Amino acid sequence: MSRIDGRTPDQLRTVTIERGWSKHAEGSVLVSFGDTRVLCTASVTEGVPRWRKGSGEGWVTAEYAMLPRSTNTRGDRESVRGKIGGRTHEISRLIGRSLRAVIDYKALGEITVVLDCDVLQADGGTRTAAITGAYVALADAVAWAQGKKLIKAGRKPLTGTVAAVSVGIVDGVPLLDLCYEEDVRAETDMNVVCTGDGRFVEVQGTAEGVPFAREELNGLLDLAVAGCARLDELQREALAGVR
Amino acid sequence: MSRIDGRTPDQLRTVTIERGWSKHAEGSVLVSFGDTRVLCTASVTEGVPRWRKGSGEGWVTAEYAMLPRSTNTRGDRESVRGKIGGRTHEISRLIGRSLRAVIDYKALGEITVVLDCDVLQADGGTRTAAITGAYVALADAVAWAQGKKLIKAGRKPLTGTVAAVSVGIVDGVPLLDLCYEEDVRAETDMNVVCTGDGRFVEVQGTAEGVPFAREELNGLLDLAVAGCARLDELQREALAGVR
Amino acid sequence: MSRIDGRTPDQLRTVTIERGWSKHAEGSVLVSFGDTRVLCTASVTEGVPRWRKGSGEGWVTAEYAMLPRSTNTRGDRESVRGKIGGRTHEISRLIGRSLRAVIDYKALGEITVVLDCDVLQADGGTRTAAITGAYVALADAVAWAQGKKLIKAGRKPLTGTVAAVSVGIVDGVPLLDLCYEEDVRAETDMNVVCTGDGRFVEVQGTAEGVPFAREELNGLLDLAVAGCARLDELQREALAGVR
Amino acid sequence: MSRIDGRTPDQLRTVTIERGWSKHAEGSVLVSFGDTRVLCTASVTEGVPRWRKGSGEGWVTAEYAMLPRSTNTRGDRESVRGKIGGRTHEISRLIGRSLRAVIDYKALGEITVVLDCDVLQADGGTRTAAITGAYVALADAVAWAQGKKLIKAGRKPLTGTVAAVSVGIVDGVPLLDLCYEEDVRAETDMNVVCTGDGRFVEVQGTAEGVPFAREELNGLLDLAVAGCARLDELQREALAGVR
Amino acid sequence: MSRIDGRTPDQLRTVTIERGWSKHAEGSVLVSFGDTRVLCTASVTEGVPRWRKGSGEGWVTAEYAMLPRSTNTRGDRESVRGKIGGRTHEISRLIGRSLRAVIDYKALGEITVVLDCDVLQADGGTRTAAITGAYVALADAVAWAQGKKLIKAGRKPLTGTVAAVSVGIVDGVPLLDLCYEEDVRAETDMNVVCTGDGRFVEVQGTAEGVPFAREELNGLLDLAVAGCARLDELQREALAGVR
Amino acid sequence: MSRIDGRTPDQLRTVTIERGWSKHAEGSVLVSFGDTRVLCTASVTEGVPRWRKGSGEGWVTAEYAMLPRSTNTRGDRESVRGKIGGRTHEISRLIGRSLRAVIDYKALGEITVVLDCDVLQADGGTRTAAITGAYVALADAVAWAQGKKLIKAGRKPLTGTVAAVSVGIVDGVPLLDLCYEEDVRAETDMNVVCTGDGRFVEVQGTAEGVPFAREELNGLLDLAVAGCARLDELQREALAGVR
Repeated sequence: MSRIDGRTPDQLRTVTIERGWSKHAEGSVLVSFGDTRVLCTASVTEGVPRWRKGSGEGWVTAEYAMLPRSTNTRGDRESVRGKIGGRTHEISRLIGRSLRAVIDYKALGEITVVLDCDVLQADGGTRTAAITGAYVALADAVAWAQGKKLIKAGRKPLTGTVAAVSVGIVDGVPLLDLCYEEDVRAETDMNVVCTGDGRFVEVQGTAEGVPFAREELNGLLDLAVAGCARLDELQREALAGVR
Repeated sequence: MSRIDGRTPDQLRTVTIERGWSKHAEGSVLVSFGDTRVLCTASVTEGVPRWRKGSGEGWVTAEYAMLPRSTNTRGDRESVRGKIGGRTHEISRLIGRSLRAVIDYKALGEITVVLDCDVLQADGGTRTAAITGAYVALADAVAWAQGKKLIKAGRKPLTGTVAAVSVGIVDGVPLLDLCYEEDVRAETDMNVVCTGDGRFVEVQGTAEGVPFAREELNGLLDLAVAGCARLDELQREALAGVR
Repeated sequence: MSRIDGRTPDQLRTVTIERGWSKHAEGSVLVSFGDTRVLCTASVTEGVPRWRKGSGEGWVTAEYAMLPRSTNTRGDRESVRGKIGGRTHEISRLIGRSLRAVIDYKALGEITVVLDCDVLQADGGTRTAAITGAYVALADAVAWAQGKKLIKAGRKPLTGTVAAVSVGIVDGVPLLDLCYEEDVRAETDMNVVCTGDGRFVEVQGTAEGVPFAREELNGLLDLAVAGCARLDELQREALAGVR
Repeated sequence: MSRIDGRTPDQLRTVTIERGWSKHAEGSVLVSFGDTRVLCTASVTEGVPRWRKGSGEGWVTAEYAMLPRSTNTRGDRESVRGKIGGRTHEISRLIGRSLRAVIDYKALGEITVVLDCDVLQADGGTRTAAITGAYVALADAVAWAQGKKLIKAGRKPLTGTVAAVSVGIVDGVPLLDLCYEEDVRAETDMNVVCTGDGRFVEVQGTAEGVPFAREELNGLLDLAVAGCARLDELQREALAGVR
Repeated sequence: MSRIDGRTPDQLRTVTIERGWSKHAEGSVLVSFGDTRVLCTASVTEGVPRWRKGSGEGWVTAEYAMLPRSTNTRGDRESVRGKIGGRTHEISRLIGRSLRAVIDYKALGEITVVLDCDVLQADGGTRTAAITGAYVALADAVAWAQGKKLIKAGRKPLTGTVAAVSVGIVDGVPLLDLCYEEDVRAETDMNVVCTGDGRFVEVQGTAEGVPFAREELNGLLDLAVAGCARLDELQREALAGVR
Repeated sequence: MSRIDGRTPDQLRTVTIERGWSKHAEGSVLVSFGDTRVLCTASVTEGVPRWRKGSGEGWVTAEYAMLPRSTNTRGDRESVRGKIGGRTHEISRLIGRSLRAVIDYKALGEITVVLDCDVLQADGGTRTAAITGAYVALADAVAWAQGKKLIKAGRKPLTGTVAAVSVGIVDGVPLLDLCYEEDVRAETDMNVVCTGDGRFVEVQGTAEGVPFAREELNGLLDLAVAGCARLDELQREALAGVR
């Protein structure tokens, strides 16, 4: 059975990672997973939030948002509505946790990195593209801060790499990296965040239709682990290039 | 190794499910998992949200909140701050999805059930206690609506049962149903929502410290499935009692 | 003429005052006036609001709220609406003023006590039950702070006791402690807050239908003063018990 | 003992009621109680709020606000803060209830009158001046609506007149119509709203310092009833004049 | 061709500038341009906003608002809606910029002047009346601060005078100082803020219907410059009078 | 004198207009003026806002926003702050008015076009780039709606073209199309919106430092008119290309 866009079940969409997209940010990446495009910027500031002051430890946080017409139907701006929706909150928190999993706060020292992930065009998998791109932006920002001596010499704030991918069961078949059209038809939808050495940072599986069995869960995890390993390679290639 | 409160690793805290706690709500349950106490009420109203009108299908939604002094340190009221925090949003959405997983919207017909889960006292596992209690309140509310002929005769809106439990790895040992003190020390924290027939509705695992391996994930899932099966029994006993 | 629930016009509903309801709060009371149940917690923190710093004086404040399904028809959450309604504001302010009337700020010293009064079930008289219960929670919190030496030895921050009751005219008859069904039918509705020595802290009378005459006002005040005296006894009994 | 501004204890400040202050509103009054100046406008619109539609009954509501520099120290604008404070809510509700006490909704028919009471300059007693002025604006608006045939011929929506005054105990002496300087020194503060025939619409007494005794309450009520009677005369004189 | 109110095209409405309208504010002016009436108060406080502390320089800012029934149809209060509209923001910013154009921050020293411009009655030109009146209130406040030695002796914080007027093209004819009825019919609408020496602080021209040509723009600027010069005289006369 | 980036005073930065940037929107343009990059999308929906229903006329509106790290220093998200700032409001309104100036509402019929202008990277002139790009997105959206027969055959909703540019006086020299570094140093700053036939839609000039003279205003207008004419050519070229 071939997928809507001709991929095999275990195939990622075309992934591109364009570093240095913004002239202002300390790290910036335009990441695409097929038609999904997310602009990830990493902003470094000296100091940490009040509750962390004097701890000698740094902080990393994230904010996710979608442009109103990144989707097929225009959505209201959250700034105009005056409040952030639950989905936005949930994804911002997921991105933040995922990147903090590979940060050594002590090595970072008292600086803050804010990762802004703005979806310019959405076609499924925006949160996993955001995590994958944000890691590269974070790596560039950390390198920048090391260059500026904001991080003490010899310290390595990044303890690993992190990437994320969605998997799901569509018409009974487990698929890797769902596009929007697959996503809306999925019976089960899972987002998996892995480190480069194949361990889990986050596993979030949801039954959209009927609840799923243990063996289905296992099949999805297999797909996701392989997908993240491939994304890890792409991140390394991007970071190996000249910015 | 014995746990902080003397339990074995695979032992639930004392769980109580007190039905009919409120005189006003169509279903109401005061659920406790040890010192965690959540008041779950189910409110039935005729009609559905605007986007669902005329579909012939019903709707189930949930709202979670904590009383300001349900925790060790008093928290600000979200009503006073004027906005709902990300954690609250995330948990409300999780509870709603979990209960919708066992609802047949067509059989429900155009009525709405709102599940309010208010944490009166928190000691870890508030979201899983809320889901477990809310299922019983929902079952009572559905029975009430059947009695009032708001649901057509012969229709069965509940397609199964649902319960939830937390699991986590503390000092390298996988534990079931973490209390607060265990929760803050957990390296990995997972919330699992299962149906009575042992399938998964939600699996949400998070590495709080170091990322976790596949075998650790498997161990946690084993514990959680057994815990949910025991909660399923307790729900059935509660529902078998006279309200 | 007998009342809807068989009481005489000058009879309180069954009042219970359950201390130590919460394991976290410095003082906590589940108070009921008939079917009205309010959870009152007193939270002690060192320090005072900014405008009071350095004064050597403490502060006491209150927040009142209703759970969405504490009433017959589910109300929207104020946190979801993003703002606090006028009624909530008004009652929170009333509770705060009432309890501050028996506090000696100097003796309290620079600590703050926040009284949270959350209505779990409403059947009329929620604000008067809240004040009556909050006084007991406050007394327990003050005792706790004395035990912790947060209040200087020998100082007595409580200058008296305070209780509150509603009165109203229904079908021309003045009644004490209205339940909801009486309250909606009342032509005149009054809330009276008294100290244990029979003086007034607050008198708030409102003509719901036709304006009321001076002699009607006098009759209501007589009833209220007697009701508060009885509540004062019940508070003393509760505080005399072992917590 | 003479008062700060030379008045006797039972003397009102100079009260002026200037009708027709605004060219746009259906009724408008600039009322002053000494240096307190409140602009009261009555706006008539056809139709009623949704919850009252089809009832054949009208509605009257009020909104109170203070200009930022109406007071000695500039206050933040509530529009800038993004929320209405408790005091504003409380007073708006009081004004609305007070005027609804003299309205026959059936006779009014399905029209709405909104009373806006904006304090241009504050020197104590702003809520009582607002009620007293708003009554006159309401009377003008009702007359306007009768002239426009928005109210059926022969119907009398106004069932009486209403005025309000503050009283308080300063240095042990009961005083009528407190100015700001007296108000801040008052041990007890009471606002009383009366109809023209001497009955009570609202009685709101608060102990600012020590709780007050029954005889003190009685003394304050005597003063307030006499003050309202005098205000009733001034309202009649204003309404007898050509607008 | 004569205008709706009998004026010639280059004629201002009757302008009155009443100083000292409020007993509390350091400067206060009730300004009217025909039926448009704006209360402008200037509030002086020691200190400056945080971002300016320690600079030795002062700050001037403005807030504009309309009373709900200042207009022909009652508008919702921005405080009730919980947010400030775009028009209000825009005008507040315009007033602030206009007055800052004639302030020497160094000479002012670290004090803040807030100009509140509240429209009591609107009939077109509220923003230009507000600027014209606010200048006079500011001048009085600066004089007050000099009298109180809050401004160092010999320093002159005001570097000039400022006034504003609207101009527009109605039925092809350029008109000065539009009233509301002219304003809604204008094809082009322009607000011009000038200093007393005839230079421009702000020029804001908008095509309401068809875009306008360069020569039309020139004609409007001629009218506006002459109008501002006349307003400058009226401001000087007002300031020359005894307050 | 040469400019910071080597341009002559009357020279635009490199302007690019990339059509069809988004797969979802009915019209979409990535416009750049030098390093300033704005994504402009035009969303077409059937129907109009409530106040316009049944009029037979369409509506065009705009929303402007900046990504948090589009600027040199990261700004807070307006969605997180819960309110839109004055500058955002002001620019959104300016863009909407500018585009409505070339729309024939009758010819458009009852459809709505929303123009979202999101600044991806800012380097001065974001509002003028937004207007210039939004016009092209609007033209594409109108063509799309004509193709879909949402606009009646033969009707031409676009009555002209519109473009915008900033001008300012820096060190006494009038300059066209200021970059950020020039903008912060400008004594006078003006944004001019012109139609393709050289008429004015908006003229907004502000003295940032000293007020400006009539001849300076004239010099700036000359520059702006020439700049807009050049932008008009670039828009035509872009629209002539294959999308």
